[in-house]
Amino acid sequence: MTPRTDIEAVETANTTFYEALERGDFEAVSDLWLPDDGDGEAPAVSCVHPGWPALSGRGEVLRSYALIMANTDYIQFFLTDVKVSVHADTALVSCTENILSGGPAEEGADLGPLVGQLVVATNVFRRTPDGWKLWSHHASPVLAETDDEEGGAGPEGGETPA
Amino acid sequence: MTPRTDIEAVETANTTFYEALERGDFEAVSDLWLPDDGDGEAPAVSCVHPGWPALSGRGEVLRSYALIMANTDYIQFFLTDVKVSVHADTALVSCTENILSGGPAEEGADLGPLVGQLVVATNVFRRTPDGWKLWSHHASPVLAETDDEEGGAGPEGGETPA
Repeated sequence: MTPRTDIEAVETANTTFYEALERGDFEAVSDLWLPDDGDGEAPAVSCVHPGWPALSGRGEVLRSYALIMANTDYIQFFLTDVKVSVHADTALVSCTENILSGGPAEEGADLGPLVGQLVVATNVFRRTPDGWKLWSHHASPVLAETDDEEGGAGPEGGETPA
Repeated sequence: MTPRTDIEAVETANTTFYEALERGDFEAVSDLWLPDDGDGEAPAVSCVHPGWPALSGRGEVLRSYALIMANTDYIQFFLTDVKVSVHADTALVSCTENILSGGPAEEGADLGPLVGQLVVATNVFRRTPDGWKLWSHHASPVLAETDDEEGGAGPEGGETPA
């Protein structure tokens, strides 16, 4: 059995990550990603934003957040379906990100157009002396459900196989 | 430093997974997913197919593969950008799946229409006495690259934030 305290600590790390994104707090987001190993071997953190190819290594991942923050004036995450599985020093978190976001305002406007997005994320954390840190974040768009599909196991009814 | 043999064993497990999908070998795919714990606690395996919401637990995950196999007559994966990171008994694999697939043929035809897809996957494996087994698979569509986007860090240029 996983100690209840481990699951709570991972849930807190996961929530802290999204709160840092909501505040556009680049330092806090950086701090939540696994640091480079002392021996110079990269920890090979990995990040996939919705619709993006994979980004690899702290440099590439953190630059993507700087770019995203520069293009985002407002963002809010409503997390649902949060599932945590802990094994030894690794934790797997699956959650649905119900996102409301807006880009920079056009001239003369108070706020850019708001966009709602339904995204599913898999976050992998590792236990470190400084707490649980992100090893991998993979987020992808959930396409509209079509209830009349055979089986109904997913929106694409078996046509997208892996 | 991670022993070279660990990385090779994880690469082999990853390749074996995609070969089993290509053969439509449901037993082999089942065998590659982490088994339930002996104490009745679910290992909480997690799986996201491209465009799908998250599936959780062996039952839900394996049913989705049965459904996908029933709707897929032909599928081939060309893996590129395979990156492996091993920490203790957990391994993180990031790869691009260049997929060519076809559904069941229409009446009178030899093969259904073939579809190409560009998908990025994050696979998390755990070391077990029976080898490396899948704890999580998350696959998502890579949307078309637009080279004239600012920064070029991704196809959506910072508009999809997590």
